[in-house]
Amino acid sequence: MFRKILIANRGEIAVRIIRTCQEMQVKTIAIYTEVDSDSLHVKLADEAVKCVSRTGYLDMEWIIQKAVNMGAQAIHPGYGFLAENPLFAKKILEAGLVFIGPDAHTMALMGDKSKARETMASSGFPVVPGGTGIVMSTEEALPMARTLGYPVLIKAVAGGGGRGMRLVLEEDQLVLSLESASSEAKACFNNSDVYLEKYLEGCRHVEIQILADNYGEVVSLGERDCSIQRRHQKLIEESPSPALTPELRNRMSEVSCNAVKAVGYRGAGTLEFLLDKDLNFYFMEMNTRIQVEHTITELICGLDLIKEQIRIAAGEPLGYKQTDIRLTGWAMECRINAEDPVTFMPSPGKIEYFRPPGGFGVRVDSAAYSGYTVTPFYDSLISKLLVYGRTRAEVLARMQRALAEFSISGVKTTIPFHQRILADKDFQRGKFTTDFIQKKLDSEKENSLELEYHSDLDDQARDNLLIAVLSAAIETYEKSEHVRYRIINIQPSGKMRSAWRLASLYGGG
Amino acid sequence: MFRKILIANRGEIAVRIIRTCQEMQVKTIAIYTEVDSDSLHVKLADEAVKCVSRTGYLDMEWIIQKAVNMGAQAIHPGYGFLAENPLFAKKILEAGLVFIGPDAHTMALMGDKSKARETMASSGFPVVPGGTGIVMSTEEALPMARTLGYPVLIKAVAGGGGRGMRLVLEEDQLVLSLESASSEAKACFNNSDVYLEKYLEGCRHVEIQILADNYGEVVSLGERDCSIQRRHQKLIEESPSPALTPELRNRMSEVSCNAVKAVGYRGAGTLEFLLDKDLNFYFMEMNTRIQVEHTITELICGLDLIKEQIRIAAGEPLGYKQTDIRLTGWAMECRINAEDPVTFMPSPGKIEYFRPPGGFGVRVDSAAYSGYTVTPFYDSLISKLLVYGRTRAEVLARMQRALAEFSISGVKTTIPFHQRILADKDFQRGKFTTDFIQKKLDSEKENSLELEYHSDLDDQARDNLLIAVLSAAIETYEKSEHVRYRIINIQPSGKMRSAWRLASLYGGG
Repeated sequence: MFRKILIANRGEIAVRIIRTCQEMQVKTIAIYTEVDSDSLHVKLADEAVKCVSRTGYLDMEWIIQKAVNMGAQAIHPGYGFLAENPLFAKKILEAGLVFIGPDAHTMALMGDKSKARETMASSGFPVVPGGTGIVMSTEEALPMARTLGYPVLIKAVAGGGGRGMRLVLEEDQLVLSLESASSEAKACFNNSDVYLEKYLEGCRHVEIQILADNYGEVVSLGERDCSIQRRHQKLIEESPSPALTPELRNRMSEVSCNAVKAVGYRGAGTLEFLLDKDLNFYFMEMNTRIQVEHTITELICGLDLIKEQIRIAAGEPLGYKQTDIRLTGWAMECRINAEDPVTFMPSPGKIEYFRPPGGFGVRVDSAAYSGYTVTPFYDSLISKLLVYGRTRAEVLARMQRALAEFSISGVKTTIPFHQRILADKDFQRGKFTTDFIQKKLDSEKENSLELEYHSDLDDQARDNLLIAVLSAAIETYEKSEHVRYRIINIQPSGKMRSAWRLASLYGGG
Repeated sequence: MFRKILIANRGEIAVRIIRTCQEMQVKTIAIYTEVDSDSLHVKLADEAVKCVSRTGYLDMEWIIQKAVNMGAQAIHPGYGFLAENPLFAKKILEAGLVFIGPDAHTMALMGDKSKARETMASSGFPVVPGGTGIVMSTEEALPMARTLGYPVLIKAVAGGGGRGMRLVLEEDQLVLSLESASSEAKACFNNSDVYLEKYLEGCRHVEIQILADNYGEVVSLGERDCSIQRRHQKLIEESPSPALTPELRNRMSEVSCNAVKAVGYRGAGTLEFLLDKDLNFYFMEMNTRIQVEHTITELICGLDLIKEQIRIAAGEPLGYKQTDIRLTGWAMECRINAEDPVTFMPSPGKIEYFRPPGGFGVRVDSAAYSGYTVTPFYDSLISKLLVYGRTRAEVLARMQRALAEFSISGVKTTIPFHQRILADKDFQRGKFTTDFIQKKLDSEKENSLELEYHSDLDDQARDNLLIAVLSAAIETYEKSEHVRYRIINIQPSGKMRSAWRLASLYGGG
């Protein structure tokens, strides 16, 4: 087993990896940028070394050199940054170290989203229709998108987490979207390559977690349903999926295991599928790394997936077979971001007070603490809140309890947004597809009353108008469960106070 | 189901009960004394009402009246205080409310530690030898103890948590011990009655958790090993016990289920046994309430025991049978107290900073938070730290990781003491009995070097002496893993500084 590992990441996933290393008695080296000096991963690691620049988490040469100099035998890339960069894996190997993940060749084959789709299609697996290969130019993209038919998705070859991804509804958005997707991909993954895919509507996002060792043993740890997304960023994940039957789970697991066997994949990996309403599934892409939501799988299978990654990379055999895997109970994760829960604008700043929920069936994975400052330079995920229970009903009740108990002040968080989803009847029934959140937001917009004041109205006229709107809102409220009131552009004045009190009384805003 | 429950308790168990009530959509009323105004249970409950005096948690009439006035249908007693007081259960029933626990009659039979032992013995179950009934006077106690043979244990009839319990090694300690046990029992449980039991040495404390509904269904949820105790207070519990075989587990479960069936017991209950080195087991007492360590059973069986208590009290059938119970994995709990980890003196005060550990397999049940003030008026338990894993080895590694990660400042805690136990080879091998901690402490004392200065020594002489002792200590350290150095009664002076630096360098203190 390795004696020391360098973790080429930050935030909660760096903390997550350190925790497992401590349990395995493997020493850890954290790397951090100037703005991350007070991060929890720096506090918890055995050693920590500061990057030269803010983009230090992408600096392959520097990272590898530090790992060598400080006596690490392996590098764990986490997710994002360099996690799916085959060149990084190759350079690590060349430096005489171990990359904790698949080998560079398989990663290039399956980690490249575009190539993976072709590999899967040529092996006869159902795939989401898409263009052939990387989009080299806008000239090439235009006919490709027209052939697929709009809407199309632009996706980053090295992507993940919705980064470098754009939904294109009409042709005249294509060029601009390509440019912005490509530059986002470059910033996040140091790789600007993108490709095109047909956007399938009314589907669920269901993914299969696999583990494969160096000796041909491959197991599926079941699925995760990640359909609750906003702008292609997963917000809530659960396992099992409310939509799957045992037969379908077995079929999707079999396809996934066969695919990774075919390419000789090693390590932890995820095959992402779209599942249509008739329960047909289409391969989308493979993530050749640990995912944010691996945690819910851990809760239902009992395996520590980071430990399994490290064991596999160290050359250990899995030591168990598919028939040894028991999936029990239900698990759900809410990703808590430091964002405004209505506008989704980032809300960086100092967390004055952080009190996570506790008790039975609650797991918190976080790098935040009382006094920690959320930087605007990286993603806004401050905590993964997970609950586990025997049934989905138990999990829904527990998640609502845990969200209500979570106390964070100083920054805005998406906790209220999660609470609204958890309270939604369709969500509670397990009835949702990837457009769930957009549809809910659109329907709220339709039912909401937007009110713009003109500054030339006098105070009395303002008050009268506001009271009229509030009365209408209350009337509408009694007819619909989805209505929300947004009252914008009001400049409070002395005389307005009574009307504002009225607004707050009736739950406006 | 109840719409509202009053919780007649404080601290972590009140928080624990509120959490479950929230998941069941049952409203909660917290009660609190002046010093508990900032307690987490007050913040989390739907309503909170302040007691008249510091002993308010024992004030039956007041509690019941508040429950009635505020519209509660039931009262949950938690553990300690009034939890095993049949009079409280009786009065609640008379007020037209439900006591969440067994009925007063069964409680009087099984909750009275002395009567329960007689009941069990007369049914032919093996019991720990003891005196007959409550000790009415010292005149009665002397011949009783002599017949049993020293050492004997004095135990509170209404007791629990080591309170009102005294180990008596020799006859001349008996009278004083009786008095102090009796007055402690009065203060803790509002009942001064005590009884005598033979103290069996070299045994494990193993207890069986049962659930029984109103319709004759009784299930065992397996055992908990609570042998790691200091002065009869449990410090670390785990389930399963490293000592039990499946056959023995089944036999102890069968005895326990038969016993509670025989008396028509209802609710959650625990039968405590001593297990000798030949795996013979002797009934000690029954706890007719939820126990502090019920949490580890929850982790291995998946049931929320507070929910089950409430469901049973509301008249719901269990809805499952013994054959439906699956016990999987391993769970362990460390009770973190606000105490000096060497002297075990309480360390009340303000918790400046509280950052619980998180991640896979970690559960924290606590009423503490950053800024919370630990009062000296109640027990010193500030957090239960639990871990869950597939195997005991996994659990040991995870607990060590979680203890190291737990960050509490402002008060002293027993975390370092737990870390020493977790690092102990005998503990790691699962080899321990109820005298484990006392033996370890005694052995450390033998190996420690105590050094008293006389104030008439001049500075130079002190320095020389200290250096000599430190050298000896280092030499001893190289020979033994158990040695600790205590250097007491040193008055630091200007000239002593160098010697103090030396001491800190060599880990003295």
